Amino acid sequence: MSQKPTVSPLALPHLKELHAYQPGFQPKEEGWVKLNTNENPYPPSPCVEEAIRATMGDTIRLYPDPTSSELREEIASLHGLRSENVIVGNGSDDILNLLTRAFSTLSETAGFTSPSYSLYPVLCGIQNSGTIQIPFSRSMALPIADIESCDANILFLTSPNAPTGVGFSNDVLRSVLRGFKGIVVVDEAYADFAKENAIELLEVSPNLVITRTLSKSYALAGLRVGYGLAASDIVEALDRVRDSYNVNRLSQAGGLAAVRDRSYMKAIVQKICRTRDFYFEELKSLGWFTYESQANMLFAEPMNARGEVGPEVALGLFEYLKSKKILVRYFPGHALTASFLRISVGDEDQMLKLSETIEQWLKNA
Amino acid sequence: MSQKPTVSPLALPHLKELHAYQPGFQPKEEGWVKLNTNENPYPPSPCVEEAIRATMGDTIRLYPDPTSSELREEIASLHGLRSENVIVGNGSDDILNLLTRAFSTLSETAGFTSPSYSLYPVLCGIQNSGTIQIPFSRSMALPIADIESCDANILFLTSPNAPTGVGFSNDVLRSVLRGFKGIVVVDEAYADFAKENAIELLEVSPNLVITRTLSKSYALAGLRVGYGLAASDIVEALDRVRDSYNVNRLSQAGGLAAVRDRSYMKAIVQKICRTRDFYFEELKSLGWFTYESQANMLFAEPMNARGEVGPEVALGLFEYLKSKKILVRYFPGHALTASFLRISVGDEDQMLKLSETIEQWLKNA
Repeated sequence: MSQKPTVSPLALPHLKELHAYQPGFQPKEEGWVKLNTNENPYPPSPCVEEAIRATMGDTIRLYPDPTSSELREEIASLHGLRSENVIVGNGSDDILNLLTRAFSTLSETAGFTSPSYSLYPVLCGIQNSGTIQIPFSRSMALPIADIESCDANILFLTSPNAPTGVGFSNDVLRSVLRGFKGIVVVDEAYADFAKENAIELLEVSPNLVITRTLSKSYALAGLRVGYGLAASDIVEALDRVRDSYNVNRLSQAGGLAAVRDRSYMKAIVQKICRTRDFYFEELKSLGWFTYESQANMLFAEPMNARGEVGPEVALGLFEYLKSKKILVRYFPGHALTASFLRISVGDEDQMLKLSETIEQWLKNA
Repeated sequence: MSQKPTVSPLALPHLKELHAYQPGFQPKEEGWVKLNTNENPYPPSPCVEEAIRATMGDTIRLYPDPTSSELREEIASLHGLRSENVIVGNGSDDILNLLTRAFSTLSETAGFTSPSYSLYPVLCGIQNSGTIQIPFSRSMALPIADIESCDANILFLTSPNAPTGVGFSNDVLRSVLRGFKGIVVVDEAYADFAKENAIELLEVSPNLVITRTLSKSYALAGLRVGYGLAASDIVEALDRVRDSYNVNRLSQAGGLAAVRDRSYMKAIVQKICRTRDFYFEELKSLGWFTYESQANMLFAEPMNARGEVGPEVALGLFEYLKSKKILVRYFPGHALTASFLRISVGDEDQMLKLSETIEQWLKNA
């Protein structure tokens, strides 16, 4: 029987109630079809490995550049911004964490849409912030009126959203930015897979923060590099709560090489989008409801051979796939997600294996 | 004229007053003798590069192990502890940051000795903690009575201390642990260069946290790997405020390889200690007061040719060395440090260059 671990009695009281973020299962042995954490099925640009090898040598014994300046300049120029508008983090989770530390406390509340990236409530919990959940309806359209009337100092939303893959247009985001008076964080972890992104809104929106990661489109989840884009006074606030050496030498060098080899990233993203759109049609042909996705995932409502949908069906398929060494993600904790599975888009072989296994399930279930 | 950058008006009020940690200068061009950030003059074990190369390949596209389990087990076995007593961080600065987040707020104050590692007040500032400074006297002996009467929830001290290099014996630490009722953090960043360390005290001290880094003795400052050792209920508290993916794949793999090749580390540490002790005698022969060091640095009070000491002399030598492309560290902000320079122990060539340059300065000043 596993016992809940105890927390030091000297720890701050709110820690006793904290629920940790649940990362997707990372199997240690080989042989899994891993479609559960939105990783890229393709390796990163070969330039990354080259840059990391070159950085090893004599310089690994030295502290990294505390401001990731070369990488920041490259990112700034990529987006038509200036270095002072860019902050680099140990993954974009680092930036999201700094945002809660700089802009939310018990009295200065944090808002976030739900369902969305489940790290937001965890970070607010750590910071002991007051929180306001803004619920989606099944349509998954952004609840603009609720956001406008939300009295939070900072608001987190993901576009394209996770786990649905649904993207929000810049027209919709413009309304949000007009109506909401605090900091608006648009988490664009999946933007490279989308039709549109919010970069052009930065110029006209002093309270907009965009976060990006190299984990998905650049295939560098293991390297932990992400960044934030915002007005310089927001970047300055985040910089004041940032660890001086938050991004190590290898991550700075590898990240720089990845961002410079943008055509490689675009090529693998294009392959993934093609596979995604093909597989979307396949799920449709099974009669399953699936959100139209602008990310590298599909959020689908499985239907069994008897035409039934619901949490039991979704969980049943999740377990069946796992028994066949295929990992997808199941979120039982929310009414709008409990009947669905989130399927990361893999390569063609992986998706074929998934299709065959679903067919077996349909025959057996 | 450089303008102080402005902070977003939406940021939490205490950020406006924050003073950032000042990392030592990291020159980007070659040709410097770099004795300013306590880096190791020797490269890390060749096993590190090998392990990092092996980890690149296909796995860098996958998220890292969220609990650094293999590395934690190795560290635990190294110190005769269990995995549940170990937390791994993105540098030991990460662990120090988690300690402030878990154990201090405005009402639950944090204490730290001064002068010491200047990151402690920065982290407390970010957390907006009440702070209690416990001053050293020029002897640099640990002020036990002041610590015992200090009403803080958590106390930070460094042993061997920075910037002095002075180590505190386990007998002294035992008194502190008996007298102080909160969490005692003994920051052992430099312990591998010391005669003694506090590991044996963990067994009998439920409130002791020891932090360690691979940046100094293992020559891996660029990789960002550190760890904390403590009772499992303290580790659990830190784990609840930790980023799930705080340590990337390459750092986990490289850190593991470094810790496994302990004999290599011991060999380079021995060389550094020999150089340190030799150079200590050299400074003594110049008539300079220097603290006896158990770390990879020497904290010396320069005396000019006229027999003068003081802030002007120290600053003068600092500037002179810099003009000759030798970097050491000068801390003007504290009465007990302003007449001193902190000299990281380099290799023999670097120390010879330093000696020659000090001789020139003595002739010219």
